[in-house]
Amino acid sequence: MNRKLRMGMIGGGKGAFIGAIHRMAATLDGAVELVCGALSQHPENALESGRALFLPQNRVYQSYQEMLERESQLPATERMDFVAIVTPNFAHFAPAMLALEKGFHVVLEKPMTFSLEEARQLKQKVEETGLLLLLTHTYAGYPMVKQVRQMVQAGELGKIRKVLVEYNQGWLSRLSEKEDNKQAAWRTDPARSGISGCMGDIGTHAAHLAEYISGLKITQVCAQLNTVVNGRALDDDGNVLLRFEENVTGVLTASQIAAGEENNLRIKIYGENGGLEWAQQEPNTLVVKWLDQPMQVLRAGGGSLSSYAQHNTRTPGGHPEGYIEAFANLYRNFALTLSALLEGTPASPEALDFPGVEEGVRGMAFIETVVASSNSQEKWTDFMA
Amino acid sequence: MNRKLRMGMIGGGKGAFIGAIHRMAATLDGAVELVCGALSQHPENALESGRALFLPQNRVYQSYQEMLERESQLPATERMDFVAIVTPNFAHFAPAMLALEKGFHVVLEKPMTFSLEEARQLKQKVEETGLLLLLTHTYAGYPMVKQVRQMVQAGELGKIRKVLVEYNQGWLSRLSEKEDNKQAAWRTDPARSGISGCMGDIGTHAAHLAEYISGLKITQVCAQLNTVVNGRALDDDGNVLLRFEENVTGVLTASQIAAGEENNLRIKIYGENGGLEWAQQEPNTLVVKWLDQPMQVLRAGGGSLSSYAQHNTRTPGGHPEGYIEAFANLYRNFALTLSALLEGTPASPEALDFPGVEEGVRGMAFIETVVASSNSQEKWTDFMA
Amino acid sequence: MNRKLRMGMIGGGKGAFIGAIHRMAATLDGAVELVCGALSQHPENALESGRALFLPQNRVYQSYQEMLERESQLPATERMDFVAIVTPNFAHFAPAMLALEKGFHVVLEKPMTFSLEEARQLKQKVEETGLLLLLTHTYAGYPMVKQVRQMVQAGELGKIRKVLVEYNQGWLSRLSEKEDNKQAAWRTDPARSGISGCMGDIGTHAAHLAEYISGLKITQVCAQLNTVVNGRALDDDGNVLLRFEENVTGVLTASQIAAGEENNLRIKIYGENGGLEWAQQEPNTLVVKWLDQPMQVLRAGGGSLSSYAQHNTRTPGGHPEGYIEAFANLYRNFALTLSALLEGTPASPEALDFPGVEEGVRGMAFIETVVASSNSQEKWTDFMA
Amino acid sequence: MNRKLRMGMIGGGKGAFIGAIHRMAATLDGAVELVCGALSQHPENALESGRALFLPQNRVYQSYQEMLERESQLPATERMDFVAIVTPNFAHFAPAMLALEKGFHVVLEKPMTFSLEEARQLKQKVEETGLLLLLTHTYAGYPMVKQVRQMVQAGELGKIRKVLVEYNQGWLSRLSEKEDNKQAAWRTDPARSGISGCMGDIGTHAAHLAEYISGLKITQVCAQLNTVVNGRALDDDGNVLLRFEENVTGVLTASQIAAGEENNLRIKIYGENGGLEWAQQEPNTLVVKWLDQPMQVLRAGGGSLSSYAQHNTRTPGGHPEGYIEAFANLYRNFALTLSALLEGTPASPEALDFPGVEEGVRGMAFIETVVASSNSQEKWTDFMA
Repeated sequence: MNRKLRMGMIGGGKGAFIGAIHRMAATLDGAVELVCGALSQHPENALESGRALFLPQNRVYQSYQEMLERESQLPATERMDFVAIVTPNFAHFAPAMLALEKGFHVVLEKPMTFSLEEARQLKQKVEETGLLLLLTHTYAGYPMVKQVRQMVQAGELGKIRKVLVEYNQGWLSRLSEKEDNKQAAWRTDPARSGISGCMGDIGTHAAHLAEYISGLKITQVCAQLNTVVNGRALDDDGNVLLRFEENVTGVLTASQIAAGEENNLRIKIYGENGGLEWAQQEPNTLVVKWLDQPMQVLRAGGGSLSSYAQHNTRTPGGHPEGYIEAFANLYRNFALTLSALLEGTPASPEALDFPGVEEGVRGMAFIETVVASSNSQEKWTDFMA
Repeated sequence: MNRKLRMGMIGGGKGAFIGAIHRMAATLDGAVELVCGALSQHPENALESGRALFLPQNRVYQSYQEMLERESQLPATERMDFVAIVTPNFAHFAPAMLALEKGFHVVLEKPMTFSLEEARQLKQKVEETGLLLLLTHTYAGYPMVKQVRQMVQAGELGKIRKVLVEYNQGWLSRLSEKEDNKQAAWRTDPARSGISGCMGDIGTHAAHLAEYISGLKITQVCAQLNTVVNGRALDDDGNVLLRFEENVTGVLTASQIAAGEENNLRIKIYGENGGLEWAQQEPNTLVVKWLDQPMQVLRAGGGSLSSYAQHNTRTPGGHPEGYIEAFANLYRNFALTLSALLEGTPASPEALDFPGVEEGVRGMAFIETVVASSNSQEKWTDFMA
Repeated sequence: MNRKLRMGMIGGGKGAFIGAIHRMAATLDGAVELVCGALSQHPENALESGRALFLPQNRVYQSYQEMLERESQLPATERMDFVAIVTPNFAHFAPAMLALEKGFHVVLEKPMTFSLEEARQLKQKVEETGLLLLLTHTYAGYPMVKQVRQMVQAGELGKIRKVLVEYNQGWLSRLSEKEDNKQAAWRTDPARSGISGCMGDIGTHAAHLAEYISGLKITQVCAQLNTVVNGRALDDDGNVLLRFEENVTGVLTASQIAAGEENNLRIKIYGENGGLEWAQQEPNTLVVKWLDQPMQVLRAGGGSLSSYAQHNTRTPGGHPEGYIEAFANLYRNFALTLSALLEGTPASPEALDFPGVEEGVRGMAFIETVVASSNSQEKWTDFMA
Repeated sequence: MNRKLRMGMIGGGKGAFIGAIHRMAATLDGAVELVCGALSQHPENALESGRALFLPQNRVYQSYQEMLERESQLPATERMDFVAIVTPNFAHFAPAMLALEKGFHVVLEKPMTFSLEEARQLKQKVEETGLLLLLTHTYAGYPMVKQVRQMVQAGELGKIRKVLVEYNQGWLSRLSEKEDNKQAAWRTDPARSGISGCMGDIGTHAAHLAEYISGLKITQVCAQLNTVVNGRALDDDGNVLLRFEENVTGVLTASQIAAGEENNLRIKIYGENGGLEWAQQEPNTLVVKWLDQPMQVLRAGGGSLSSYAQHNTRTPGGHPEGYIEAFANLYRNFALTLSALLEGTPASPEALDFPGVEEGVRGMAFIETVVASSNSQEKWTDFMA
């Protein structure tokens, strides 16, 4: 890379959770700097947040429209290269579309949009403009998830037979949206979150991971979504039988009322020769169970891992990396690809391996499919993408 | 107890797996002795097996009919008290019925019979005779499973919300039934195993455990059974959405083609206040995740456990017990109950807590229900019991 | 084996811990039966204990002298073959000597005697009589400990470099010997336990295991023994630097005041090519860390294990075995060896692999050496055996 | 903080390991920016490394002397605030002394100097100048290590009784210093590393951690250092008995020839009421074993943790943090303290909790003490600090 890339941010002002993660992730490797922001709809908060981030005052904007307009008029050597949109779901589409129209590359939180229809429009816009879009499916950034995918693709497990994914959280075990919990409030509000709560928020991560590691598309689902906590407006729990291409089956279970769980995403994939098991809460370890040989435990940083795992690691074995580093891997790959684009050079296959608009469309299709299935008496519902 | 109880065995000759387990389990606590057997259909094997077990020659029988007849004619101070039937599924019903008719108490391997219809007849016979029947759902014998059930019953988790159970094995990942593997041969043979393979063999354990720990009955299922290995006659894998009483939902997944897995039965149950997680392969540990307090790890042998857990433990904490001890707990409770019956004294609630004919009927109903559901296009199938 | 072996027991009456373990272990495999006992010094307790074990009244003795005398006069087809001595340390030597003199084989709890001098005399007697002696170093009975030893002996780790063993318990964290805890009372009493508490009770297990798995003898120690709890008469904690043959070094740490620990015995051994790690509380798992390859996890019951591991296993992988089974392995190997001796056939190498009088002498030497070292200002004290 | 702090770096050019870690750690929270560097002794490498870090060309210096001189002449609004020295041990003292003389605060890798004498001089200089010094004992930056220290200080364990620390690595299992491994080359070279290899490199971490979590000083040691790999010039392995203040004892074992180990630092501390156990490779988990209550597992990000643990955490429970975040905690606390100093405000107790020159002196004293002890025939050697 010839220079640091310049990032703007929409959302992520004081009190937001994910905005701070994006900033750490984006800048961890010293290849991206935050240069401007429309950090909040509230003028006071926007200003204060800009100051806390040491942004120059003239690049702290009061709205995303203002930011995109003003930045697009700055000289090429100064204006931001891309914008990270870290607002709630309902406020993804409009700024993303405008950013693309103004010529900015985009980083977007998941689920990508408010509806599948928006997602399809956004995909069309990305294709028209040729700009890059990174969708932050964080968990795909972990080195040992890369390792799983590479082992599957290399055929080490033989033909794939089964995928089991579960994502259990407990933080919505009570009606917290009525107790001044801002995260709970918007994520359980159909007007801000969309037609699904739990499946939209974390089921999409699980579904993406299942497709990513298996290399197979989900073709049909049989879903049961539940609203367990009385008074809640959206699903907070659900179980889904999955059918994939190539006769592979699976189960996806997700919950935000699994009391006592933190962020317990676990995935298992079985093939003819063995199975792989990965758990997000101990992400540097990958358990490999072989049919006819002793179990192995692969560890991040180890020398025998695939080039994709090694590319997404910063420290030697035994120096644990975590969530922020996984998130930073998405940004680093996006930045490497963007720099290559700007410099007219090819990006490496490892750098190109980040989730984008196609995964965003499938995520929205997953949401609409499981909601439809849950409302149906039919056993199987075709995946809508 | 005033004396040792006397056990006979049907099946379990040389080369059998589960017969040896039954014998160790039955005699571990010094309260039961093996006195006779019809150990094999093959006269040579029957004799040789009897010798290897140091049985007196006159109590090594050539058929279960002979054994039940001859034992019933022995004086009360000598004849066996109960018979353990450890044959393949198709050969459970007839000897069990005859044993009951001859006045013997019965220990029976699961699944209890070949069909739900047989199970119902057996249940009627048990009720008519007033004799005891132990169904060896081994996993219900572990002290930490007892602990889970007691914590749920005591309301420590609050209202139950979700049950997740998975039972993964890999030993049928290949077409082993065609490779001179006797276990594989009968368990995948509809004529000896029944209408289901994986669900009959291990799905029934998982279903029993789910009902046992939750104290709730399954009311509806949505099942997808798979025959993954080409050339196999029965299901070797399956996934089931569960509905329980009281609006509780769950998932049961079972597989015998999960390559690399040994005997990986795991269960999680969530209530309003927290969740419990237990894994058979590390059975002395119970993870308790609380909504608002630090996670706890309860350990078998610990002083704070329920009377049921303590009753089913032989060693202090840190001296691990395992599968044989869990199995022996079933036998010990059965033996304590039987002794109490013979002595005309009441058995303790802890002793009375062993699976019997009612659980056997529900197991057969589970098999017939999931097979029907898997063949149906309807989403939900009512549980048949 | 042509017949069951007949066992007598000295000690192990009502309320004793280890006697019950011995009985379960001895009889688990159906090859040994308890035929007589001198179960307590208290006549009432002796009788009651005999009844509870369903022993014939005429073989419930009031003293070990009576038992050894009377049994030796019974016909060969009836009298016990061997005696298990499960009394406190001070009461090991006399009954063991007498038993040997009367021609009985012996099973003895560790530490073998009260003093090194006694141990040497006992060894001489064993050698003179040609009788068998089993010393119940339980932890050497676990299949995965056998596996460690075999891998080391086969050179899989290359030259051994380091051995780390720790044995932490917390049950003596308070002055429990003053609170009517019988176990605590005798184990902390110099008159009944000997010159060391913690090192005698559990340090000997750790030292035995270190020598057993490495195949190397300890040559020098540098010990610091501590009496942490005020008012206690013997060490309840200690740390020891170890030197072994062949320039190998190590550390042994043992404690009975490690509050919160159950029975946490762990051992690690490193060679040029990798390291092995085993923990008694999860005994079916052996972690193998290789210098240049991924870590492996070997599991009891797995097909690739050594013949010694397989010989000492009863169940397939995933059906956990525990402390009682490990204990039973000692008895089974002793019984196989004894039967072979009685029948004039050779015992297999796997059967012959049980701890005996030689290990007993080394255990007593360990105790006397670490006590001497702890009292010395010299850095290194030669091992006394 | 009113502004970002400006950092310069000495060492850390292309190919260095720890320099990159320092840069990520320093800048992770957006409160520090790298403004200049004397990154290598080789002019070419220095320039290239500066370019790769996007430093302005006029602040890429050819020597640390040049950098310290030139930066000290820049206006206060522009010149660096502090310098991070990430060179091998022999090259810590001179630049650190000069930096302090020029008025710059200092971040220094451990061990702090080449000799105890240098360490004492450096301490005197720090005290004279009143400048800040951060010594990067990374492992003290983990939130769950903070938690251990706070629980001990709050008396939750009661009086402390024992500390066990082990630090096992395997990367020097071969004579890698002769195989073009730069890290191995300098770390095993007495001219660059000092009088100890393993104990200087990782033993110092273990000793620091033991004192940090217990709040107690080591008073005496009994050490055995080993040079296991033939041809090596310094110790690569060692075991140390420890005596602390207040009659506490312990063991420290460290190895770089523990083949197969990555970076396995583990610590246990026992008091009257229970024990705490932490392992660096799974750093977000803290096991709490209580004498009379069930074991607990505390998890980073949890709400019940001490203010020190929470202050050193960036993500909610279940979003794992790792080595880089722990390192960044050191920098963040140093930066908060430095900002407070520059702004004339008080720093919080949590911010003030980072290792400094005092810990650096003790680290050097540890090295000299264990080397002296290892060479002595005396059992105990007084700690030299």
